[in-house]
Amino acid sequence: MSSYSEAEKETVYRVISERRDMRHFTHEAVDPEILKKLIYAAQLAPSVGFMQPWRFIRITDSTIRDQIYDLAQAEIKLTGEQLKEKKTIYATLKLEGIKDCAEVWVAALMEGRDKYILGRRTMPEMDLASLSCAIQNIWLAARAEGIGMGWVSFFKPDDLASLLSMPADSYPAAVLCIGHVKEFYSKPLLEQAEWDSRRAIDEILYENTWGNACSIINDP
Amino acid sequence: MSSYSEAEKETVYRVISERRDMRHFTHEAVDPEILKKLIYAAQLAPSVGFMQPWRFIRITDSTIRDQIYDLAQAEIKLTGEQLKEKKTIYATLKLEGIKDCAEVWVAALMEGRDKYILGRRTMPEMDLASLSCAIQNIWLAARAEGIGMGWVSFFKPDDLASLLSMPADSYPAAVLCIGHVKEFYSKPLLEQAEWDSRRAIDEILYENTWGNACSIINDP
Repeated sequence: MSSYSEAEKETVYRVISERRDMRHFTHEAVDPEILKKLIYAAQLAPSVGFMQPWRFIRITDSTIRDQIYDLAQAEIKLTGEQLKEKKTIYATLKLEGIKDCAEVWVAALMEGRDKYILGRRTMPEMDLASLSCAIQNIWLAARAEGIGMGWVSFFKPDDLASLLSMPADSYPAAVLCIGHVKEFYSKPLLEQAEWDSRRAIDEILYENTWGNACSIINDP
Repeated sequence: MSSYSEAEKETVYRVISERRDMRHFTHEAVDPEILKKLIYAAQLAPSVGFMQPWRFIRITDSTIRDQIYDLAQAEIKLTGEQLKEKKTIYATLKLEGIKDCAEVWVAALMEGRDKYILGRRTMPEMDLASLSCAIQNIWLAARAEGIGMGWVSFFKPDDLASLLSMPADSYPAAVLCIGHVKEFYSKPLLEQAEWDSRRAIDEILYENTWGNACSIINDP
């Protein structure tokens, strides 16, 4: 485990900055060797108490994919009805690529998590944090491979769990759309659509107490 | 946004595989330029509905650091008392490096999150998922910089929020210990201690329904 050259550090920052939440895909199949690398990247993620709560369900059955698409579309409609502002922008957004991508994977939390209390006794939701780190690993590995990924969370978890015959105490946290893309967005789609803007560093980093400016940002 | 060379892909997989949840640090200060890069890496993470819920509080006040340490130690003791098995291994584990590391950052969810419903109407916990992706970005960037990081979740969130004068509807999700290390662990500490073992790929990847073997793993 040696050190990283300047060029290698740049590559790490580059993949972090070029990763995008993709909604547009081509239908071209993804090489299974790349899919294996993506799941290896997930397997190497950190997890609270080394519990490794992540499970992935690869959807190859087109009927199930269509049903997931229907769940997402229903929720996209309900969210739109509940929005109090920015309804016009919302109506223009492409919010999922479930029928367009080569691969649909459901990312879920495993069953039987209650017995894992190391780092979770007061914060049981750390299992979701671990799964999210695994998904971020997949995202970054996919970007390096030239493969796009989108995280869709437009669904009712109970409905999706039922569709996939998941155990009662497991939990589906994401529909991942994975596949080749024509090009990666230069900026997040929601930024392009002026849905919201990128927060500045001084808005997200404080010192000692909430809202207090952090000195490292103000240093020249 | 061009493609990645084979060497660049290898660098991405390397940093993913060499990242470790660190508990042992030297006291040497971290260059503020590196700290800035870590927060930029967080800023570039994906977030549900582009809400960017992440906030970081850098703790430079040694009294506050000591109080965070005390919260963690109290919770480590309570967890140990509640464990039903593996108590002997637990007693040998180093579970935090709060007093040893150069930097303590508290990672939190911002206040006022209820109004963000894009991708969260049925799954409000997606804010924690976004914050976790940001923390994973920091972790990977730090590893490339030769800096270790540990995620500590041994505390009662209400106690930590109170200590840092956090708004009522914000939420502290992690105490991050960041700093130089003598060396990165070759394997996760909990794996070394035989607390648990790494799950095999066929245990974490299914096809179409829960528990069903996935064909890409069995392909030659």
